Amino acid sequence: MIVLFTDFGRDDPYVGQMHAVLAAEAPGIRVIDLLHAVPSFDIEAGACLLPAYASRFPLPSVFVCVVDPGVGGERRALALRAGEHWYVGPDNGLLAMAARRDPGAQWFEIAWRPAALTATFHGRDLFAPVAARLARDDTGALEAVPRPDSLVSVAATAAWPDDLERVIYVDHYGNAITGMRGTYLGASERLRCAAHLFAHANTYSEVAVGAGFWYENANGLVEIAANRGSAAELFGLRVGAPLTVVRG
Amino acid sequence: MIVLFTDFGRDDPYVGQMHAVLAAEAPGIRVIDLLHAVPSFDIEAGACLLPAYASRFPLPSVFVCVVDPGVGGERRALALRAGEHWYVGPDNGLLAMAARRDPGAQWFEIAWRPAALTATFHGRDLFAPVAARLARDDTGALEAVPRPDSLVSVAATAAWPDDLERVIYVDHYGNAITGMRGTYLGASERLRCAAHLFAHANTYSEVAVGAGFWYENANGLVEIAANRGSAAELFGLRVGAPLTVVRG
Amino acid sequence: MIVLFTDFGRDDPYVGQMHAVLAAEAPGIRVIDLLHAVPSFDIEAGACLLPAYASRFPLPSVFVCVVDPGVGGERRALALRAGEHWYVGPDNGLLAMAARRDPGAQWFEIAWRPAALTATFHGRDLFAPVAARLARDDTGALEAVPRPDSLVSVAATAAWPDDLERVIYVDHYGNAITGMRGTYLGASERLRCAAHLFAHANTYSEVAVGAGFWYENANGLVEIAANRGSAAELFGLRVGAPLTVVRG
Repeated sequence: MIVLFTDFGRDDPYVGQMHAVLAAEAPGIRVIDLLHAVPSFDIEAGACLLPAYASRFPLPSVFVCVVDPGVGGERRALALRAGEHWYVGPDNGLLAMAARRDPGAQWFEIAWRPAALTATFHGRDLFAPVAARLARDDTGALEAVPRPDSLVSVAATAAWPDDLERVIYVDHYGNAITGMRGTYLGASERLRCAAHLFAHANTYSEVAVGAGFWYENANGLVEIAANRGSAAELFGLRVGAPLTVVRG
Repeated sequence: MIVLFTDFGRDDPYVGQMHAVLAAEAPGIRVIDLLHAVPSFDIEAGACLLPAYASRFPLPSVFVCVVDPGVGGERRALALRAGEHWYVGPDNGLLAMAARRDPGAQWFEIAWRPAALTATFHGRDLFAPVAARLARDDTGALEAVPRPDSLVSVAATAAWPDDLERVIYVDHYGNAITGMRGTYLGASERLRCAAHLFAHANTYSEVAVGAGFWYENANGLVEIAANRGSAAELFGLRVGAPLTVVRG
Repeated sequence: MIVLFTDFGRDDPYVGQMHAVLAAEAPGIRVIDLLHAVPSFDIEAGACLLPAYASRFPLPSVFVCVVDPGVGGERRALALRAGEHWYVGPDNGLLAMAARRDPGAQWFEIAWRPAALTATFHGRDLFAPVAARLARDDTGALEAVPRPDSLVSVAATAAWPDDLERVIYVDHYGNAITGMRGTYLGASERLRCAAHLFAHANTYSEVAVGAGFWYENANGLVEIAANRGSAAELFGLRVGAPLTVVRG
């Protein structure tokens, strides 16, 4: 299975062009659109979302990961083998958290280049064809990275915490997904955001209509929601909003 | 064919996760995204839209129907056999109109539960795997409901009219789909909404640019539109807006 | 491969209904959603976008092209053979630029009609079934057009320039795609839009954060962008905005 994880949006022609390349170069292999709404330019948010969602996919899947403001510049193109999945994407930190979850993670540089490589659409021209090859068990495009600490993905992200105390995604219901895993919080703990304090509940219908709460979502991340309402609108939550854990 | 009909939105990762489950559990079966923009929490609107669209699908199709604000609470999980299609979804009224169109409709409770069932994403964890089984002609997950009038889908919706005199969906052109079937209105009748009165036309180009009219849309529902304009913007139409039929 | 190119939007049920028809009538053939956000009613913009994107698809593909405000009226339904691709769509100019790029282009009228043809959804009822037949190498639905200059696609578009000096699409990043091909401009030339002047760069990271520039995008069209920002918001660019080439 090949899985797309980008900030390309659903409305523009970019996703369809990637599907066309994958259909031609990996015929018969299923392609899933997981997320094309990674917050633009927010590599840290994307890095936290990726392993939370990837963990539920059948092994092995090949994830094409593109949040890439440095496209066409000098940033390297990588493949990562971690948790039995493959990930391909730019060396800018996007793959950092997926790697960190697997002590045996292996980094590769994409050495192959297509005959025609545009300066601005490596998703279509470079990452999709490499993903197609990996899905066919062809690793000929890759070279092992001898010193992974030379990578931006490793060096520049070393200081990132394992759990991020901020909002990293707001869905169309207005639910606010945070960078904290459910294991980071106990059910007796609360979350503060600006003037609002959120206690734990298991599901929507446990609280009053319009009331806010936090819960561990279906992908293991802490999420702030409201029963039959938009938590984002009711409480002013947006991507980047800082959160404080109120313990005890 | 498996068909998705939800309020999950297109932009969030939920639809892709359902596709991944279906690809794994019903390999080789086509999955169609019919609608992920059912108005949030508006179960009655979803219930009216479903049979209008389902009637055009090849027999038999399996519809995964999720508008489910009560997820994780005590509401039951159902499968419905009606009009030779299968429908799976929550017992909250969403399937009521699809059932009502077939006097031989049969209700089943989903007795099976997956090893891991999250409290908030039954679309992925419960309804998608059951749909995959039904698409493979495996009904082992189901138990017949001995007394259908014990269901919310039947009892709580008994008073719903067959044709709903309000707007139930507004599309991106600004066309306003109503809950009335085309058979409910004669071509000489008009529709009133607030200060506006709409007469019948067969298609856009029959009226002046910017003028509004009603017509029976391509799925048999009465729809208010404008020629080369947004009826929703021009006339202030939105989901829930009440309509009055002006006869004669 | 069948490719969809419409103004239907992604959120409404129309695209899914076309997929259902194609799945039934062209089983086993891949269907790609290229673009469903062609600017509404802007046939000239759609006509310029189509060949830019079609040129990258595997030969032969069948493009279903629907921007069709005259649906249900007297406009003809066409198929076009150009550049080894097939295109099906309305006779309103949408296919004009794809035809013009191939001196050997051939026009056909769609003579076949389905048993049930609604007045407002020819994409589902007429164009999709014809595309399915063409993808199966069945041209029985077509009749050659003896006098192509009788077509709106030819006669009414004869005065259109080959390169259009205006914005024809704005993507979700805020990049503004123009109707000019990259070959129309030299790297020393600049583009003026209202009070703003844009010089050439090869890629985003060549200019300062927030600065605007033009480049030849990955489909050969001139595009105005900003590094890590929305050119549309920063410089007030929208579909239809006129541009002036500043030479020398």
